[in-house]
Amino acid sequence: MARKVCVVITARPSYSRIKAALGAIQRHPALDLKLVVAASAVLERYGRLIEVIRRDGFQIDETVYMILEGENLVTSAKSTGLGIVELATVFDNMRPDLVVTIADRFETLATAIAASYMNIPVAHVQGGEITGSIDEKVRHAVTKLANLHFVANTQSAERVIRMGEDPSRVFVTGCPSIDLALDVLRDPALDFDPFERYGGVGDRFDWSSDYLVVMQHPVTTEYPEARRHITETLHGVREIGLPVFWFWPNVDAGSDGTSAGIRAFREIKNPSRMHFFKNMAPEDFLKLVYNSCCLVGNSSVSIRECAFLGVSAVNIGTRQGGRERGPNVIDVDYDRRAIAEAIGRQLSNGRYPSTPLYGDGQAGPRIADLMASAPLSAEKRLTY
Amino acid sequence: MARKVCVVITARPSYSRIKAALGAIQRHPALDLKLVVAASAVLERYGRLIEVIRRDGFQIDETVYMILEGENLVTSAKSTGLGIVELATVFDNMRPDLVVTIADRFETLATAIAASYMNIPVAHVQGGEITGSIDEKVRHAVTKLANLHFVANTQSAERVIRMGEDPSRVFVTGCPSIDLALDVLRDPALDFDPFERYGGVGDRFDWSSDYLVVMQHPVTTEYPEARRHITETLHGVREIGLPVFWFWPNVDAGSDGTSAGIRAFREIKNPSRMHFFKNMAPEDFLKLVYNSCCLVGNSSVSIRECAFLGVSAVNIGTRQGGRERGPNVIDVDYDRRAIAEAIGRQLSNGRYPSTPLYGDGQAGPRIADLMASAPLSAEKRLTY
Amino acid sequence: MARKVCVVITARPSYSRIKAALGAIQRHPALDLKLVVAASAVLERYGRLIEVIRRDGFQIDETVYMILEGENLVTSAKSTGLGIVELATVFDNMRPDLVVTIADRFETLATAIAASYMNIPVAHVQGGEITGSIDEKVRHAVTKLANLHFVANTQSAERVIRMGEDPSRVFVTGCPSIDLALDVLRDPALDFDPFERYGGVGDRFDWSSDYLVVMQHPVTTEYPEARRHITETLHGVREIGLPVFWFWPNVDAGSDGTSAGIRAFREIKNPSRMHFFKNMAPEDFLKLVYNSCCLVGNSSVSIRECAFLGVSAVNIGTRQGGRERGPNVIDVDYDRRAIAEAIGRQLSNGRYPSTPLYGDGQAGPRIADLMASAPLSAEKRLTY
Amino acid sequence: MARKVCVVITARPSYSRIKAALGAIQRHPALDLKLVVAASAVLERYGRLIEVIRRDGFQIDETVYMILEGENLVTSAKSTGLGIVELATVFDNMRPDLVVTIADRFETLATAIAASYMNIPVAHVQGGEITGSIDEKVRHAVTKLANLHFVANTQSAERVIRMGEDPSRVFVTGCPSIDLALDVLRDPALDFDPFERYGGVGDRFDWSSDYLVVMQHPVTTEYPEARRHITETLHGVREIGLPVFWFWPNVDAGSDGTSAGIRAFREIKNPSRMHFFKNMAPEDFLKLVYNSCCLVGNSSVSIRECAFLGVSAVNIGTRQGGRERGPNVIDVDYDRRAIAEAIGRQLSNGRYPSTPLYGDGQAGPRIADLMASAPLSAEKRLTY
Repeated sequence: MARKVCVVITARPSYSRIKAALGAIQRHPALDLKLVVAASAVLERYGRLIEVIRRDGFQIDETVYMILEGENLVTSAKSTGLGIVELATVFDNMRPDLVVTIADRFETLATAIAASYMNIPVAHVQGGEITGSIDEKVRHAVTKLANLHFVANTQSAERVIRMGEDPSRVFVTGCPSIDLALDVLRDPALDFDPFERYGGVGDRFDWSSDYLVVMQHPVTTEYPEARRHITETLHGVREIGLPVFWFWPNVDAGSDGTSAGIRAFREIKNPSRMHFFKNMAPEDFLKLVYNSCCLVGNSSVSIRECAFLGVSAVNIGTRQGGRERGPNVIDVDYDRRAIAEAIGRQLSNGRYPSTPLYGDGQAGPRIADLMASAPLSAEKRLTY
Repeated sequence: MARKVCVVITARPSYSRIKAALGAIQRHPALDLKLVVAASAVLERYGRLIEVIRRDGFQIDETVYMILEGENLVTSAKSTGLGIVELATVFDNMRPDLVVTIADRFETLATAIAASYMNIPVAHVQGGEITGSIDEKVRHAVTKLANLHFVANTQSAERVIRMGEDPSRVFVTGCPSIDLALDVLRDPALDFDPFERYGGVGDRFDWSSDYLVVMQHPVTTEYPEARRHITETLHGVREIGLPVFWFWPNVDAGSDGTSAGIRAFREIKNPSRMHFFKNMAPEDFLKLVYNSCCLVGNSSVSIRECAFLGVSAVNIGTRQGGRERGPNVIDVDYDRRAIAEAIGRQLSNGRYPSTPLYGDGQAGPRIADLMASAPLSAEKRLTY
Repeated sequence: MARKVCVVITARPSYSRIKAALGAIQRHPALDLKLVVAASAVLERYGRLIEVIRRDGFQIDETVYMILEGENLVTSAKSTGLGIVELATVFDNMRPDLVVTIADRFETLATAIAASYMNIPVAHVQGGEITGSIDEKVRHAVTKLANLHFVANTQSAERVIRMGEDPSRVFVTGCPSIDLALDVLRDPALDFDPFERYGGVGDRFDWSSDYLVVMQHPVTTEYPEARRHITETLHGVREIGLPVFWFWPNVDAGSDGTSAGIRAFREIKNPSRMHFFKNMAPEDFLKLVYNSCCLVGNSSVSIRECAFLGVSAVNIGTRQGGRERGPNVIDVDYDRRAIAEAIGRQLSNGRYPSTPLYGDGQAGPRIADLMASAPLSAEKRLTY
Repeated sequence: MARKVCVVITARPSYSRIKAALGAIQRHPALDLKLVVAASAVLERYGRLIEVIRRDGFQIDETVYMILEGENLVTSAKSTGLGIVELATVFDNMRPDLVVTIADRFETLATAIAASYMNIPVAHVQGGEITGSIDEKVRHAVTKLANLHFVANTQSAERVIRMGEDPSRVFVTGCPSIDLALDVLRDPALDFDPFERYGGVGDRFDWSSDYLVVMQHPVTTEYPEARRHITETLHGVREIGLPVFWFWPNVDAGSDGTSAGIRAFREIKNPSRMHFFKNMAPEDFLKLVYNSCCLVGNSSVSIRECAFLGVSAVNIGTRQGGRERGPNVIDVDYDRRAIAEAIGRQLSNGRYPSTPLYGDGQAGPRIADLMASAPLSAEKRLTY
């Protein structure tokens, strides 16, 4: 009988990272995909990712509201708790053979805990990486709860194993987000009108010539700083004078600070040729990035997909702390001058060669095959 | 200003393990103890530990109900979630400088997550040990969330460090439970009437001569087996013919199975000279154990305190899986014959020499001193 | 298209009261029955009603754990809250056209609130009755949230209308529990062995001659008294000397006190010819009651079904406060002597004539028909 | 000993309605005020009312996050549930003698339920009024849970009594919001600069001459319509050409629609002399309203305070449905033309005479005195 694999999608970046695997699971004859869409993925305010998922042809088995309003440290904790309460009911009624959790968000942890206590084996995608902030604690805690580890590269695999995980359960599959980047490399034309398709607010402009893309999230352990940080970026980017596609932040402690900073800037400076989007289908977003002059902000896309796509990036602040990175990234502090200067350098550098730092574009099918064949057990023990 | 240290007490064994540290924190001039009593510690059905804590002279700052009825896998998960929801509110209103979490229970994890997301440093007592079951996942996940590690012995310290924790934040303090055992070693007389003081059900008997103590908990990953397991123990113990002090299980997935097994046995066999207790103050319990011929079951007291007290123990099943143990322990399977046989052997062995496997009895003051002096930060990063 | 009718079953008595309607809804061509089984109905400790429901041929669409351990006032409140959180997710995924809530329990209120806020019309079964305790507040609060009222008799209808409900939405259907009583009247033979079928603990005895049935629940506003109350009943009943079928209490604040009282009595008095059951299928229970000499306790069965069955009853205390009652009931205080005396009187009175105080046995089909035909709207307004 | 009175403040309008009573309770020698600030009152996004409360000189005993993100029907239900879970813990630790709940919001219901199940008497302020939408269900359900009723006028008192409440527990005190209006009548000068003190976004303008005030909330039972409704108002108001002080909506299912409508209008129309505020201290707000030409929208301030202040109002849509109103109100549908036309008529009408429809300005002290003297009991029974 097909193994019932439950994937919990909770946010835009998680969806991008798992989408290629979802397709592969759906097509795999020995697997039965069950999809739970929860947290910010169901919220209007974050662009109702759920509709993107539906349009992508996936059937959604359950939706769950689990985010407490407040976007601060207290509500992150409480949302984690509420997520566990809710997902336990979902798993109890669904009875999956394997639960898949992605990366390092609070919903990731909620998913892993609900499944672990219910003796359901947990597969973790994107363990073993290093970053700053609370994500760091959460990612490795999830590793300790997970039974199967699908990691992006050998460095990550090594770290997961050193943490005491059974090497026979750690698989270097690459990250499924790179599968989407490979599709884009093969067909890179920006063949849609971003304003038409995604609405958003702000000036519309000619996107057939040079432009920037910006995506900056608040850093949870630096909550009160979020507003100051985004303001530096806004000023630094404006100085360049190129048109900009700007993405609102994820739901996270502090995103109110980030959003407030953006709103205040728009109010006061009335910036021209800046357009603000809530959300975009992952492939569309990657095409937009591929055809840009530079990706600015603190998204992991700078480090991961852009390495593969050969797009230059300016990475701001601590959020991507310890991640392996290629030559395409310039790291800068929260400082408008440094940001402008780094973008300037990247504009003269132009495109970089493709580097498979986080995968070769085959992660999805590899993960699906492993899910179908790996021994499933919720039991584990430290290897030392 | 004194550091505000919040300790969350949720169950009988956790209290025994932290009590000596509580006293030391309370007495320390640079520390301000805040006590949250939650989960089974507030429940009538598990003996209202909260009253024991009050009688021991501790002031309780907040009580929290957080356990879902059901005692199965789903409700363990949901209780963890609800615990996070509740503790986040408590921490938000209390604003502690450090939160202390104990061992490897679901409430341990809830405490660590609530504090972690709120950027409050977490101290973990009893990390780095190895056991079977879900506790194994939870204990190491808590290690990945904790900032200070107070471990029982050098083997545990080594494991915590190998998992990627900063060695300067890992302290071999011994387990505070051994501090209580040291008090008992110094004054071992069974100077109270267990029946008088603790009530309970079942025959009363003469406890001045030979008797056994039994404490057996359900193993969460073996839920449906709990009833069968306890029945084997009940038969095995009865065969010995000695009077028995028997302790009801903790709240845990499966304890209904264990309790049901005990109730059915009492109903059908009407066993003589078996008395059943819900709870006992930790020191009274250790005196009872010290003066017994053998501790039977799967409590970690067999492995930890009994090593120090030199009391023989028969440890049943997988629950204490990988823990370091001294010569005082005989391990057996869930089998009435093997259990009876092992008890018989221990009866002829008699008392063992004291071994400081899990501490030397000075853990409490050491932990308090470290809490007062260690650098406090919620930030951390894998060491490799 | 058939209307999707979602019934939430949460406890043994609620099931008895709705079962006849469930069958009628299931058979109705214009209705599509959706069943949520939640709260104590899924708990081992309360006899896993869920299995009875399955054996009765109903398909269960969702199970929900929502009861906090503690059985006190705080946890009743919290269970209500958690129930709303959970049921909102269930209703959101299920999208029923009508939600049915039964009587006056905290789950009743949770169901009504979740549906009300989601603009789903609410049908309330058993509104307009008068009793003591918190149930009184809850029942009428549910009336104010409900859109359709299926009440047991004209007095109840009048009260619901006087509270400002639209008379065209208030239907005197009788209580579906009387439908089951009618089946029993038609085929009253006690044609099963209660001990065989339902297990339980305590002496087995010859049930072909005279016996009593006892069912006593804690009264939530008299929490600390629960143990004293049950003890009076235990003594009063034992004095009679007849064999007894005794039922453990529902989950409710205080049921621990009731259960503890029963356990202590059994421990100390070792009563002969008293057998204790957790649960019974409603029809089996009614047959047992029909063939008994008297029903003792504070169950509403004394007032409702027994009036119809013509069985004598001794009703103890305040729990059935203001309910309409027939001549078959003698009311007494929590007093062993008064209880024994009243049972004695009922034994000499013998069987009573049947009175259709709470229905004529046709409620189920009537309710189903009304659900199929009544206008459905979540809107309402006070009539004055 | 002073009675411990716990007031739960959850939103801007509730604060305005209770503030005068808070002061009176605080000053009353026989009362001990305990303040819980929760729900949208603690959220940045809704203007952090909590800071206004602190500045007003009240000490806050507990803050509670309880609102689920989503602002739709599901999350309103879930927030109610979570509020009960949280408030039960707060009440359990605080042990108040009386809990006060205000008006008809979901938090009102959560507060009433938590207290009711814990046998704490509940005082309800503003029962017995008639409006449309889910508020109607909630307000009367709270009446059925409350033990003391402090109502605004005799019509409300009559309705509460007709619903079966004990007349000796129903008190016509007037609404404390009118106490604030009385203060404003006595000292009506707009003696602060709204832009300076409250920030906000949009054009600043000369507020010494004619201006409008707009406050429009989404109507929960008309959720999908919220955006269309606000758009009609925006166009209708703009047509008048006067400068406008506009207030963002409360947190409620649909407020995202309202907010989105406002944002889109600003984006596209770039309206001049419209300034948007999140929040204002109640007295400042009333001064602003007093000095305006007309209050437009669907706030109950139009009906209540404006009657007393003699300010003309245009009330849009169903939200204030059945409320008693004075001659100062013109009711219109969601239609830009009708809105503009009604504002025009009010501009020519000018100021109205003061009508004490909802109180005479002495409610606060009256309520405090009654709280100190009324018999407190959580028990109640329908009067018929």
